[in-house]
Amino acid sequence: MAKRAGLIAGVCMWALAVVSAAAPDAEHDDVPRYNADGRLTFPSSYREWIFLSSGLGMSYSAEGAGAADPSFTNVFVSPSAYRSFQRTGTWPDKTMLVLEVRASRSRGSINQGGHFQTDLNAVEVEVKDQSRFAGKWAFFGFGDGTGPAKQIPTAASCYSCHAANGAVDNTFVQFYPTMLAVAKTRGTIRPQNANER
Amino acid sequence: MAKRAGLIAGVCMWALAVVSAAAPDAEHDDVPRYNADGRLTFPSSYREWIFLSSGLGMSYSAEGAGAADPSFTNVFVSPSAYRSFQRTGTWPDKTMLVLEVRASRSRGSINQGGHFQTDLNAVEVEVKDQSRFAGKWAFFGFGDGTGPAKQIPTAASCYSCHAANGAVDNTFVQFYPTMLAVAKTRGTIRPQNANER
Repeated sequence: MAKRAGLIAGVCMWALAVVSAAAPDAEHDDVPRYNADGRLTFPSSYREWIFLSSGLGMSYSAEGAGAADPSFTNVFVSPSAYRSFQRTGTWPDKTMLVLEVRASRSRGSINQGGHFQTDLNAVEVEVKDQSRFAGKWAFFGFGDGTGPAKQIPTAASCYSCHAANGAVDNTFVQFYPTMLAVAKTRGTIRPQNANER
Repeated sequence: MAKRAGLIAGVCMWALAVVSAAAPDAEHDDVPRYNADGRLTFPSSYREWIFLSSGLGMSYSAEGAGAADPSFTNVFVSPSAYRSFQRTGTWPDKTMLVLEVRASRSRGSINQGGHFQTDLNAVEVEVKDQSRFAGKWAFFGFGDGTGPAKQIPTAASCYSCHAANGAVDNTFVQFYPTMLAVAKTRGTIRPQNANER
């Protein structure tokens, strides 16, 4: 019996060693956490989450189009939400999407044309937390810092625009090509977005 | 004793459940594998690897700059290589970097300016495999397919350009802002790239 217990303990140590090696830090903060004031804590390992897509100088209004110094916007999703979306085509409760805004440059090192990414300018987070927010989803802006962020008021245009135009449940899956393919396969894309590609 | 063994087994089951939940598929193919012909097998879960950066229409020659229909280039690195780089500022043996080339669009859904990503056009992989390649690094082009890829011949310009201009060991860390910060901290950036930002 002692020998068997030793064997089990041995297997167990190995299993724990594997957990430690395989589980990226990214898993530790992939659900929303709030401080006592209701501010969202910064998801410090979001750069190790799953990348969905990036855009350069994207604009939803004619006025905003064609900025001389466009920003890159990188979108990451929490790993557990990503895995759930792969199976279901929908976002589970506690999903977090991070929008990272970075400056762009054309000339630098050997690059002579187009744009590459440079300094971080802002991080914004969209959270699905159904028991906490009446509209299920909420937005938080961290600026270029990492301190806890206040919720952006629900009168802000991000709420109405995402609710009206998101291809899947308040999110712009139409701009994330690999997720769009999943949503089409799972039949979860909103009817008015059925022709997105 | 039986009770303790049961407890250990219980903990063990839990640990294994965590392994299963936490270990992303991305870990399964994050070292290079070759078939009997020496072709590199497709790293099928690279979209779950660590995103380094993306560019739009980047060009290393004046002639290539300003294409009317620029491509996005997304770069991903194998998770184990990423973690090693975080600690050391250098790429370990078996590092794999994936360059994903995607088409861009300006108008689509509610977007009116700038560019967002659409269809996959090509996947290229840079591999560090010191015992296999005389120059330590090799390139493979998968096109838009997922079949095993032949090595790109070493006379191709990617080899000489990366060797001459990579900020860290044959790689364009100067275009990956989060890795550039690590390389500066660790003091591993090549002297001629010391002023990159």
